[in-house]
Amino acid sequence: MEEKILALIEERKFGELKNMLSEMQPPDIAAIFEEAPEKDIPIIFRILPKELAAEVFVEMDSDMQQLLIAAFSDKELHDVIDELFMDDTVDIIDEMPATVTKRILKQTDPKTRQMINQLLAYPDDSAGSIMTTEYIDLKKSMTVEKAFDRIRKIGFESETIYSCYVTDAGRHLLGIVSVKDLLLNPKEEIIGNIMDENVIFANTLDDKEYVAGLFEKYDMLALPIVDKEERLVGIVTVDDAIDVLQEEATEDIEKMAAILPSEHSYFKTSVFDTFKARIPWLMLLMISATFTGAIISGFEDKLINFGARIAFIPMLMDTGGNSGSQASVTVIRAISMGDIEFSDILRVLWKEIRVAFMCATALVSINFIKLFFVDNLLLGNFDNGKVIVEICVVSATLFCAIVVAKIIGCSLPILAKKIGFDPAVMASPLITTIVDAISLIIYFFMANLMLGAV
Amino acid sequence: MEEKILALIEERKFGELKNMLSEMQPPDIAAIFEEAPEKDIPIIFRILPKELAAEVFVEMDSDMQQLLIAAFSDKELHDVIDELFMDDTVDIIDEMPATVTKRILKQTDPKTRQMINQLLAYPDDSAGSIMTTEYIDLKKSMTVEKAFDRIRKIGFESETIYSCYVTDAGRHLLGIVSVKDLLLNPKEEIIGNIMDENVIFANTLDDKEYVAGLFEKYDMLALPIVDKEERLVGIVTVDDAIDVLQEEATEDIEKMAAILPSEHSYFKTSVFDTFKARIPWLMLLMISATFTGAIISGFEDKLINFGARIAFIPMLMDTGGNSGSQASVTVIRAISMGDIEFSDILRVLWKEIRVAFMCATALVSINFIKLFFVDNLLLGNFDNGKVIVEICVVSATLFCAIVVAKIIGCSLPILAKKIGFDPAVMASPLITTIVDAISLIIYFFMANLMLGAV
Repeated sequence: MEEKILALIEERKFGELKNMLSEMQPPDIAAIFEEAPEKDIPIIFRILPKELAAEVFVEMDSDMQQLLIAAFSDKELHDVIDELFMDDTVDIIDEMPATVTKRILKQTDPKTRQMINQLLAYPDDSAGSIMTTEYIDLKKSMTVEKAFDRIRKIGFESETIYSCYVTDAGRHLLGIVSVKDLLLNPKEEIIGNIMDENVIFANTLDDKEYVAGLFEKYDMLALPIVDKEERLVGIVTVDDAIDVLQEEATEDIEKMAAILPSEHSYFKTSVFDTFKARIPWLMLLMISATFTGAIISGFEDKLINFGARIAFIPMLMDTGGNSGSQASVTVIRAISMGDIEFSDILRVLWKEIRVAFMCATALVSINFIKLFFVDNLLLGNFDNGKVIVEICVVSATLFCAIVVAKIIGCSLPILAKKIGFDPAVMASPLITTIVDAISLIIYFFMANLMLGAV
Repeated sequence: MEEKILALIEERKFGELKNMLSEMQPPDIAAIFEEAPEKDIPIIFRILPKELAAEVFVEMDSDMQQLLIAAFSDKELHDVIDELFMDDTVDIIDEMPATVTKRILKQTDPKTRQMINQLLAYPDDSAGSIMTTEYIDLKKSMTVEKAFDRIRKIGFESETIYSCYVTDAGRHLLGIVSVKDLLLNPKEEIIGNIMDENVIFANTLDDKEYVAGLFEKYDMLALPIVDKEERLVGIVTVDDAIDVLQEEATEDIEKMAAILPSEHSYFKTSVFDTFKARIPWLMLLMISATFTGAIISGFEDKLINFGARIAFIPMLMDTGGNSGSQASVTVIRAISMGDIEFSDILRVLWKEIRVAFMCATALVSINFIKLFFVDNLLLGNFDNGKVIVEICVVSATLFCAIVVAKIIGCSLPILAKKIGFDPAVMASPLITTIVDAISLIIYFFMANLMLGAV
């Protein structure tokens, strides 16, 4: 398919190309543009029907958009911008250099320009930054028939027509009525009688992740957004909410892997930006691991004197680290999904302690069997006089390390959230480093206690 | 709010309770049920208006649903089931013991029962398992007016009325028409002229994650699902797609943290189930860490003879592990999001190698400065004769470990996906274990090369 289209471009068969592209979906056409020779891009864009062209434009990355804008005449630019929804226009402008922004704003009428500037002013992570201002507003006194007239009149320009918002003269939100309600009620019914007054709404300055979470919880298609005076100023649609939920999950995953969150997809992020996102945590964790090293060197000789084995250290540290990150990652995701709040901390601790005891019992048992039967009897790796004590030191360390790791792993993210830190940053790498050090200290303590006295 | 309602329940003020609950959203009412005394639950449920009651029922967890079903008369059960959408009914039945399932099926008419059984038969991860069979179907020859008549007739029972599907006599999907199209066209227009024939659809057996991905890509409200003979059998709605996307992200996160994916939210999963999800990987990784330990014991004496330090091992292993999991986690998420495919493997490698060289250069420089100026000059930790060689051993090891870790981290998930394994399982813990061992071997090799000869 893609090859065929690229061949048509090369052969300059624009008629056939137009027919093929017109039957495709905007994201797929945008993908074709990525592959096409740069010089042909404006030509191909111009053969698209006007409405489709605008939809494709929205799906492109900002480099491609900038390339096209540079090739556009003022009239062409005006036509494309005119077809866009307000939130898409703002997203595009957000990524453009100042000169391009200026050119775009010049092609919009003063009212639109004012609206764009207002939307651009909302903080990046706010509901205002993802809302659009094109929605259907109705009055309480309208009949269903009048409502349909209004939808027919302004529906072309609304991002969704399926949720209509009933407002008073001061633009305060009174209720919501869906097109389904309108269709299933008689023409002469009054909107005020059929509207639902229990409206779920959000504020322009609410966190966009909170807003996206409302979509997940209440299964909505659109959410009305009000300003500080509770006046309706826009709506967020479900497609934008999905994007926010996906971005949020990606960010959490990146933070758990000790990466600073990036804005763009894998190949759209430059090598240097990827480097910048990864190096700070790598450096911090490298430095902090030298402390673990320092603990080992401090106790190395004593350990060997006790007869305890350095060889157990990776197993003890890894198992502690893995136990801790299992707990922390589970809790962090549950916090993101709204399942765990600060008030749940004791419930979480109680659950994790029980899980930790079960995990510790199972792992210590397996480890005991392995050490006693395989390492001791089969391989004869132990000095016979001390075998039981040595195995006890390792077992006790393992048990304590797992329990401590789970407790730290589950409580740190909740505490971080409470004091306004990002719980995801508290995840595996940082917790692993803390747990590594603690596992080592427990090992030395146990060795000293049991082997030091022998 | 919640306290007030619980107080009303205790004081048996059911009139006031009914008024308050009727103005709340179903998920919030379901949350109230979780807190209410068990014996009051059927009474409170009965005071809810019929339609709201069904919506609340869907939001409850299956224990609560089972408790209510046990308290229902056959008539009550029939009324609730009657109000549910087909996909919700199937979801509920899926979680119930056989006796309860039988009782529910007895309350449905033969046609519905057949449909439910058919939906229950789809594999758990298929599009069929999340679709509903209640949608609006239209004929090509209908006028817009006739289409509205049909929507008014069957719209009450459809999960969404906003996407209508045009089928032929054999139920083959011909096109799609939105209510927006219907509203913005004259009454006498023929559906065949306004329908969009470029329909995005999926097959009943397609993976549900693939289907959810289509929603994200194409910004749809509903997706038609066809069977093997390309006959329309159902639709998936955007709210279910959101749930699948969120579940998928949670699963990926769990797998990256060496946890088997769980079906339920944190507190809904029992302690024993949490234990079962966590213990297999902990055990496997504990066993595999003993190999790392074996490598250390095998080379320990030689290392000390060379004058290389055990104390550097945690720093080398951790930095390698972190570098590798940064690459693997980024690639795994990009695979999930559809940004990386197998054919991209060389592009990914080329990018990761460049990032690895930048990270390695930065980290080795910092480490060199720390070792030479702080550890050597300030703390005098080194034997003066060998200081430069020792620092070179550590630096060379660090450099190689980072580059190797990034290469393994980015390529393993892609290769796993190619041979049909789950890329997320290849993530941090497994890669960390592999990279740990490799970092150690590099360290011994470098020490042997540079210090062995000294």
